Amino acid sequence: MSSTYGEHLKVTLFGQSHGAAIGVVIEGLPAGMEIDQEALSHALARRAPGRSDLSTPRKETDQPEFLSGVMDGVLTGQPLCAVIRNHDQHSRDYSTELDLLRPGHADYTGHIRYFGFEDWRGGGSFSGRLTAPIVLAGALCAQFLREKGIRIFSHISRLGAHQDERIETAEQSQLEALSEMTLPTLSPCMEERMAETIREARRSGDSVGGSVTCRVDGLPAGLGAPFFGSVESELSRLLFSIPGVKAVAFGDGFAFAEGTGSEMNDAFTIRNGQIRTATNHSGGINGGITNGMPLLFTCAVRPTPTIASPQRTVSIRDMEEREISARGRHDPCILPRVCPVVEAMAAIGLTELWKERAQCLSVSPTRG
Amino acid sequence: MSSTYGEHLKVTLFGQSHGAAIGVVIEGLPAGMEIDQEALSHALARRAPGRSDLSTPRKETDQPEFLSGVMDGVLTGQPLCAVIRNHDQHSRDYSTELDLLRPGHADYTGHIRYFGFEDWRGGGSFSGRLTAPIVLAGALCAQFLREKGIRIFSHISRLGAHQDERIETAEQSQLEALSEMTLPTLSPCMEERMAETIREARRSGDSVGGSVTCRVDGLPAGLGAPFFGSVESELSRLLFSIPGVKAVAFGDGFAFAEGTGSEMNDAFTIRNGQIRTATNHSGGINGGITNGMPLLFTCAVRPTPTIASPQRTVSIRDMEEREISARGRHDPCILPRVCPVVEAMAAIGLTELWKERAQCLSVSPTRG
Amino acid sequence: MSSTYGEHLKVTLFGQSHGAAIGVVIEGLPAGMEIDQEALSHALARRAPGRSDLSTPRKETDQPEFLSGVMDGVLTGQPLCAVIRNHDQHSRDYSTELDLLRPGHADYTGHIRYFGFEDWRGGGSFSGRLTAPIVLAGALCAQFLREKGIRIFSHISRLGAHQDERIETAEQSQLEALSEMTLPTLSPCMEERMAETIREARRSGDSVGGSVTCRVDGLPAGLGAPFFGSVESELSRLLFSIPGVKAVAFGDGFAFAEGTGSEMNDAFTIRNGQIRTATNHSGGINGGITNGMPLLFTCAVRPTPTIASPQRTVSIRDMEEREISARGRHDPCILPRVCPVVEAMAAIGLTELWKERAQCLSVSPTRG
Amino acid sequence: MSSTYGEHLKVTLFGQSHGAAIGVVIEGLPAGMEIDQEALSHALARRAPGRSDLSTPRKETDQPEFLSGVMDGVLTGQPLCAVIRNHDQHSRDYSTELDLLRPGHADYTGHIRYFGFEDWRGGGSFSGRLTAPIVLAGALCAQFLREKGIRIFSHISRLGAHQDERIETAEQSQLEALSEMTLPTLSPCMEERMAETIREARRSGDSVGGSVTCRVDGLPAGLGAPFFGSVESELSRLLFSIPGVKAVAFGDGFAFAEGTGSEMNDAFTIRNGQIRTATNHSGGINGGITNGMPLLFTCAVRPTPTIASPQRTVSIRDMEEREISARGRHDPCILPRVCPVVEAMAAIGLTELWKERAQCLSVSPTRG
Repeated sequence: MSSTYGEHLKVTLFGQSHGAAIGVVIEGLPAGMEIDQEALSHALARRAPGRSDLSTPRKETDQPEFLSGVMDGVLTGQPLCAVIRNHDQHSRDYSTELDLLRPGHADYTGHIRYFGFEDWRGGGSFSGRLTAPIVLAGALCAQFLREKGIRIFSHISRLGAHQDERIETAEQSQLEALSEMTLPTLSPCMEERMAETIREARRSGDSVGGSVTCRVDGLPAGLGAPFFGSVESELSRLLFSIPGVKAVAFGDGFAFAEGTGSEMNDAFTIRNGQIRTATNHSGGINGGITNGMPLLFTCAVRPTPTIASPQRTVSIRDMEEREISARGRHDPCILPRVCPVVEAMAAIGLTELWKERAQCLSVSPTRG
Repeated sequence: MSSTYGEHLKVTLFGQSHGAAIGVVIEGLPAGMEIDQEALSHALARRAPGRSDLSTPRKETDQPEFLSGVMDGVLTGQPLCAVIRNHDQHSRDYSTELDLLRPGHADYTGHIRYFGFEDWRGGGSFSGRLTAPIVLAGALCAQFLREKGIRIFSHISRLGAHQDERIETAEQSQLEALSEMTLPTLSPCMEERMAETIREARRSGDSVGGSVTCRVDGLPAGLGAPFFGSVESELSRLLFSIPGVKAVAFGDGFAFAEGTGSEMNDAFTIRNGQIRTATNHSGGINGGITNGMPLLFTCAVRPTPTIASPQRTVSIRDMEEREISARGRHDPCILPRVCPVVEAMAAIGLTELWKERAQCLSVSPTRG
Repeated sequence: MSSTYGEHLKVTLFGQSHGAAIGVVIEGLPAGMEIDQEALSHALARRAPGRSDLSTPRKETDQPEFLSGVMDGVLTGQPLCAVIRNHDQHSRDYSTELDLLRPGHADYTGHIRYFGFEDWRGGGSFSGRLTAPIVLAGALCAQFLREKGIRIFSHISRLGAHQDERIETAEQSQLEALSEMTLPTLSPCMEERMAETIREARRSGDSVGGSVTCRVDGLPAGLGAPFFGSVESELSRLLFSIPGVKAVAFGDGFAFAEGTGSEMNDAFTIRNGQIRTATNHSGGINGGITNGMPLLFTCAVRPTPTIASPQRTVSIRDMEEREISARGRHDPCILPRVCPVVEAMAAIGLTELWKERAQCLSVSPTRG
Repeated sequence: MSSTYGEHLKVTLFGQSHGAAIGVVIEGLPAGMEIDQEALSHALARRAPGRSDLSTPRKETDQPEFLSGVMDGVLTGQPLCAVIRNHDQHSRDYSTELDLLRPGHADYTGHIRYFGFEDWRGGGSFSGRLTAPIVLAGALCAQFLREKGIRIFSHISRLGAHQDERIETAEQSQLEALSEMTLPTLSPCMEERMAETIREARRSGDSVGGSVTCRVDGLPAGLGAPFFGSVESELSRLLFSIPGVKAVAFGDGFAFAEGTGSEMNDAFTIRNGQIRTATNHSGGINGGITNGMPLLFTCAVRPTPTIASPQRTVSIRDMEEREISARGRHDPCILPRVCPVVEAMAAIGLTELWKERAQCLSVSPTRG
């Protein structure tokens, strides 16, 4: 089903952008965990629109209300439900019926899927707005992982023609700074260069795509499993749930297709008495299981499909070809807002895998 | 869990390369479906090693035995179990204990994961040999889909430096020829060029990676769902279960990161009275749901990690650094054998999605 | 996990009796189904307390708010979230810490389970109040089934020493009347006799148990499956989720333990050209699958554990033995309010089974 | 789906009584557990027919073969597949087509369910023979639990008119003796009396039902959860998967329906510094969660439907009413053989719950 994820951690999403509220039910986080409100608010603010001149001026006050599972700010261990009200809905902006299909959007496929009964206003249940409850769930999972020494960082590794430095060689101070930046990047002048590209896209009524690369430090070896339980399987299904993600690569990703075994294999070595790999082409995973090296993966994000330039499309009412131009102001680039969502999905998936591993550790003997 | 996939179709894998047998339990294929034995044998033969001078000469006679769920060659509707015996095990080639960790393999992570109790011989449960039951399950699913007019094709879109033509523009005859080729490619001389690269890799004790691109024709619009139920989520978790797959991209994939909205949006148009898109950058998916265009995706496959050239590694027994060189003969390139596995995973995932959609169609009213 | 049920229909419960709200997320009901508001309100009213002098006077205004999945009263096909606010919470009635363990309640086990972090006020997430969202979900499922000709009826088959007539022989008018009765019973004077027993229990500061028997008409043959997918497995896990249910029996239930094969087997016969059974000891199920006869099952419900009479217990704060007497007014018998919950669980489980069957029908060929 | 059970422990059943083999795939038992072959053989022998003059003389040599997941008798942590070959099939005893529907069996419902394609010979996938892999899985789980101090005992609490003593007051020596008895009972002369009833049933061409009561010692408090994750929900769905089980009761079960709160509540008390209950009407469960007292439950088992006496039935070929009499020799009472199956299901369900709890313990802080 499309709304529920996980076995050891269950995350159930609901909501449409123009319904009463959007939200999430989470089961599996530990009783007794005190919510880090500051970290939660920070994560939600990073995703919210209107933070800078680079994103849409629609204002979303994503103040979650906890309906259950929390008492005095502490998790009770019971299913947690958090909702975020939809205030700024402007349903009057929408005609009573779906007509012109927006290219690159789910207007047409949602219409087929839900037999014409879908709430299509503002993207309905396909709306990027549903990433808010994902970020909320992810922030709680990230806190859970942080308390185990696991940290998740992400940057915009590419935006149009611009490519940032590689995150695997970034220093701790660079990593820490990322979540405070409007355009999280490592290379000194990269933020300004990408910002200019976004402004240019806006000026020309167009939009621009990019990629987000994520690095997770502090993961123990042994998370994941071969085949359907691989780290890549678990994370990719979550990452591809993010609207606009069209590709996911682990470690060197597509470079593997052009390389040879002698180039791409990571030699094993001993560092501080621990088995490590000399390089990290594999992105911290062997055979679907973490190997104790930093986890590395990259998501390609499509340019926002909503653009001011005129596009050819179809009127589903009349079954005739037409032209469409987006009215109002829209994000010419969602990359900055996608970063916290990618981190959230990573946190959700790694919490699932961490719990599964904790269970194995609690029931298995160790070889003498 | 790592062994079971699916809600509407359940596929449970088991086996190690050096145990008694490997196999699969499948539930959810329709009672009354008569197994197309020829198609099944063909799929298994494509995956088996030793078909040409390009792959390992180990001979696997992958004759499945159906233990349950089949009567007189027809599915009974009850759980089907098929096993493939391991004959060519050569357990004597293995010392009694894991020692030198093979770079790029799961020796180390499997050892951590299973607390030293894993069957590590020949890759154990991480072995590429477990793709045989996947191909078996996939062949049955492909037959199920074929009877609904859905066809799955794949080619080696890249192998080292060589890039094949794009499959979206291939003609029907080209597509049909692919499954008969040793190196399934579209461009005329490509097969020989890639073969030469593989032979060269073997000569130099190295291996070579590549990518497989898959095209699925005949899918109706409406399969999949937003978020966790997206076509991309469902397929990516299966594709990343294939040993060696390091990246998965839908449609134009990473090209989206460098493009603009006006370039990458697929305009809607009307063709033969049906809504279609003029281009297919999105690979047949909008908002996680099929749009009636051909489904397109690509997997990057790492070069075989087992190479003859010496590599640095660690003795887990002595916790000391050593050197390792693969003995015996190994596949310098698994791409040809990965094609049927990719197709199998696509067939499994699409059968799950097709059944989910059939259920919706059977319970929903249609808008007047 | 404790909060989520189902594969073809997903129902996720959340809430504590003294949190902000309780609610449910439902996925899998068909797009386009228009909510029968009257039937929904009626079901919720039957479960609500304070309907007569026989139940607790606490007033619960269970007006659900639909946060998602509904537009203009029609299901959109997307996950539906409905919440019911907790108004009458009286948290001030509770001291700040759990102390005296109420016998028969989950105070102690909840305390262990959630490590002392549980919201224990008013039963927390164990509260009978959580049956409100179950009834809500069940009412929607019952409507779904009703539109397929399936009807669910229940009566109080036993209350203390009183035993009602058997529902399998009830006439249609008797069945229709049940949901309108304070104490749904078939035998003419039974309602008054049971009411008197309840009043007597209240007078003596005690409570009384009973059993609910459910009959489902109109089910087609073929729902369910052998082993883990049996009708009994699917329904029993739901029925045992109802607080207070201690036994579940299908058809003649425990009478099977005292009977012989010749007595208890239901002979096959032909009625109106259809295969039926002459008797219905099996309660409409053979081998875990419906046989086209009415489905019959009974749940034993414990007497409300909260009683005014003094009981021995333990202070968990001081780890000393004490005495406890319930203050305030409580239901001396929850049977009348359990009936709609049992029906709701039946509706949820049968919708799951109905959808699973609809899927089989949509993919399987029929034997010529 | 009907073949797969569990989240933390996955058990997948397959097989028909007249196919090549029956078997089970198990995932989730700990790597490093050495199989107690003696305990496993003993459990399988208890279930096998032909042990005494009281059961069917068909000989089943249930020697399991482990295809995967075991190396040198030790679990590797990877999915374990065990198969049991079907030797004594006598397919020639069966005509080529299903005709006379056996009353009380799944002939008719299986025919509808699988559209006439089912393997109906010998009960097909509904056969009691499939309880062999259940017992196998259960024996491994029972070993897992035994190593944690948890012991499972069962006796025939009722057989026709005979009622055995209550197991909650049995002494340790009595409990230990049960698994060695042909008819496991506590009261001294009960075994012989029940045996006589079974012989009598055979003489008269009839069969007799009964009930099995199970007691589990050594369970910690805190297993299970409210609602869908209750101990009763988890166990009942497994117990109702056993062919012939028609009712499941926890603790005093249906006696709750006739009792009052003051009678049925279990007062809390302190014993050896631990919170216990003075009585155990609830069978060791409060609010769906174990309370540290012995777990008690009872299953009602129908009389074997296969009887020599003539019964009315229908020819599905001719759609006409006929008479049927079972040929050959059949179990006049399956109760003795059901005991190990009930214990197996208890072991499977409790392993699932134990693992879920172990996970909570490994991630939750404890209140200071």
